[in-house]
Amino acid sequence: MANTDMDKLIAHAKGQGFVYQGSEIYDGLANTWDYGPLGVQLKNNIKQAWWKRFIQESPYNVGIDSAIFMNPKVWQASGHVGNFNDPLIDCKVCKTRHRADKLIEAYDPELHPDGWTPAEMMAFIKEHNIACPNCGGHDFTDIRKFELMFETSMGVVKDDKSTVYLRPETAQGIFVNFKNVARTTRKKIPFGIGQIGKSFRNEITPGNFIFRTREFEQMELEFFTKPDTDLEWFNYWRSHCMKFLNDLGIKPENLRFRDHDQKELSFYSKATTDIEYKYPFGWGELWGIADRTDYDLNRHIEYSKKDLSYLDPQTHEKYVPYVIEPSVGADRLFLSVFADAYDEEVLEDNDTRIVMHLHPALAPVKAAILPLTKKQSEEAEKIYAELSKDFYCEYDVSGKIGKRYRRQDAIGTPLCITIDFDTAEDHAVTIRDRDTMEQIRLPIDQLKDYIAKKVQL
Amino acid sequence: MANTDMDKLIAHAKGQGFVYQGSEIYDGLANTWDYGPLGVQLKNNIKQAWWKRFIQESPYNVGIDSAIFMNPKVWQASGHVGNFNDPLIDCKVCKTRHRADKLIEAYDPELHPDGWTPAEMMAFIKEHNIACPNCGGHDFTDIRKFELMFETSMGVVKDDKSTVYLRPETAQGIFVNFKNVARTTRKKIPFGIGQIGKSFRNEITPGNFIFRTREFEQMELEFFTKPDTDLEWFNYWRSHCMKFLNDLGIKPENLRFRDHDQKELSFYSKATTDIEYKYPFGWGELWGIADRTDYDLNRHIEYSKKDLSYLDPQTHEKYVPYVIEPSVGADRLFLSVFADAYDEEVLEDNDTRIVMHLHPALAPVKAAILPLTKKQSEEAEKIYAELSKDFYCEYDVSGKIGKRYRRQDAIGTPLCITIDFDTAEDHAVTIRDRDTMEQIRLPIDQLKDYIAKKVQL
Repeated sequence: MANTDMDKLIAHAKGQGFVYQGSEIYDGLANTWDYGPLGVQLKNNIKQAWWKRFIQESPYNVGIDSAIFMNPKVWQASGHVGNFNDPLIDCKVCKTRHRADKLIEAYDPELHPDGWTPAEMMAFIKEHNIACPNCGGHDFTDIRKFELMFETSMGVVKDDKSTVYLRPETAQGIFVNFKNVARTTRKKIPFGIGQIGKSFRNEITPGNFIFRTREFEQMELEFFTKPDTDLEWFNYWRSHCMKFLNDLGIKPENLRFRDHDQKELSFYSKATTDIEYKYPFGWGELWGIADRTDYDLNRHIEYSKKDLSYLDPQTHEKYVPYVIEPSVGADRLFLSVFADAYDEEVLEDNDTRIVMHLHPALAPVKAAILPLTKKQSEEAEKIYAELSKDFYCEYDVSGKIGKRYRRQDAIGTPLCITIDFDTAEDHAVTIRDRDTMEQIRLPIDQLKDYIAKKVQL
Repeated sequence: MANTDMDKLIAHAKGQGFVYQGSEIYDGLANTWDYGPLGVQLKNNIKQAWWKRFIQESPYNVGIDSAIFMNPKVWQASGHVGNFNDPLIDCKVCKTRHRADKLIEAYDPELHPDGWTPAEMMAFIKEHNIACPNCGGHDFTDIRKFELMFETSMGVVKDDKSTVYLRPETAQGIFVNFKNVARTTRKKIPFGIGQIGKSFRNEITPGNFIFRTREFEQMELEFFTKPDTDLEWFNYWRSHCMKFLNDLGIKPENLRFRDHDQKELSFYSKATTDIEYKYPFGWGELWGIADRTDYDLNRHIEYSKKDLSYLDPQTHEKYVPYVIEPSVGADRLFLSVFADAYDEEVLEDNDTRIVMHLHPALAPVKAAILPLTKKQSEEAEKIYAELSKDFYCEYDVSGKIGKRYRRQDAIGTPLCITIDFDTAEDHAVTIRDRDTMEQIRLPIDQLKDYIAKKVQL
């Protein structure tokens, strides 16, 4: 749909139990969100689909799950201590605080000032006389850097008590384990290590629902290659990610590649592409695919004094591998999937239905078990118990059947299974398809196979 | 096995890629652990087994996934601010720091001083002349309370910047969403809300590998009941948890219930039972099942001024529900499963094999695809690609077949599939069973069904 706006999506997410405001009974906590009963199913399905495609089915990749707390030296090596910050600027007139790069982007959406120096940004703001978005004033302070890592203290004995950070990315947990994984799996390059986990960034301007939050979940892959083959693999993963999004059923017209130009590239990156999604608020990053060269491993070699190079068992060449990093946020992919699936359909009788056209593999509820009347409860409960062993199902006996169908449409349930007066006799049920609204009759003993086939990815 | 000791388990976990020391190349970070390629599969399988049993298959329960960051008022209401601490005591002689309750427990393992006051602990230590475990001295400071919650700062504008905590339990994320979930799912009491997620406690004495860590993952269920039915449901979940552990194949002789006596109970709890596991270091808590009465919801009613009571749609009674809380650590269950499965078997030929007798549903690798020689690679790769769509498999072509079997035994792979000289002709493979080591011949087109049946829980 063209005009899905954010408020409508947020209301739908809350009303149906996909996403609630965090700590809501205490008037919330800025920018935190809780996934409700349907939201956690959808999010888990997204994470499992990623894991299946990027880890389980890949002959190249394995997974890990590293700790959120890491030795602080990791963040010195990675460059996050001292270099992971946002360019802050204050309006002297109204005293509001802003991100300098975002002021420039708002002024000209074609610009991507990520790679600019503070001086370059300041010059641009002055040259184009950019105004404060709050009061319209033109008097700003200088740009200062604001550290994005959350700090806390660990340990109890004074000598032992130390500052640790909440990891701002899961990637470093992979790099520090490169040797461990290579040793224990005996994987040969090229191979990749992926993980799913929480990361934390004290963002200055979080917002747009779950698009940018201070606590978020990443799905990252670090793919280690021979140095001269990196761009080849960069293209491989670039296509692989897009194909995955297409297979999830996200509309092609809402997806596009955006290659970073030379100026926007991080100094260590040879190539970076974003896959952008057309969110209700406009095009925005969904997936970043970067050729990070041998930067990360070299930094860890320098800081840890450990040998993280790779010895090719065939050619006996020794080298520090290059790394391709496809990195996507689980929450951001959730938002893309959710926004893309939402639809308000006008039906033949001029009635309107809200329907979530989620890929059946992602739909939170795979099948709704609906006894036509309470008389069919016993039979229906049996079917529910049996199907629940394999699929997340809902059981609903209350209200008219048409109303129950609508509720299932609104949460994206691909199949409604109705147990009616004939079921006891013919041992069959009626299955209604969410998208076509067509119904067929199916023997009960064929249900599992039918659903399994439907929810395949 | 009787004498599995912790060091052997840790070495096996590290050597096979189950669990590595966290930040190892930087000499670690105290008490952090990273799950390797096999560990993440085992842990995910454990979490998914819990979710299937406690959420998907339960007609009562639904899941959520709430944020780690919560409004600080939540922790005032829950009693964690000011009351969540450990009793610290310092030896004046050698200046080492200890937990007073642990000193008492070490002195008499039958005692559980959790519910004692600091004065009671101090009196006991003096009365029994308990010595410092480090230097043997008998001169201690008074007991002081040490706060267990990790603190950090969120936000950037000065007025907005505030102290937030890393949640010490996932339970409160459920309580604050009780109304939201009841409203959106239209669930009737009794019903439960479960979640899996990271929690953080700045433990004074973490240790025993992944048994007690400062960062850990919980699987918690809060089950809401009518006030006068709570003990009935307490017994229901007590049995349900034990049955789940039995179904996972954990040896019954390594599991036991331990009911808390009146003195040990939290003041708000009517009944609490631990399911204990016999770890290599002795019996320890695995699962806590507590009747928390209406304590938590009442506290949130008091602090949030929101009405969290429940109106029974049938009887029109209005009440604050009672809560039964079965709470288990994913890491601790991992340790139990891992320790329980580890075995060193002496075979008929007096050879020894290390074998992990993991339940096939939990085993990280479901099937190993083993071409007998490189000549069968093409056929084997096809089978690997096909099976990988449904199961996490390994492909291994290197080394003698016997050695490859042993490696799969050591990581608990239930099935080894060998592609041999006859496969091209009879379209069949040899399947070797991990536990019996017996082999059968099976047509390739029956493989999926065979594995699927084997890995059922």
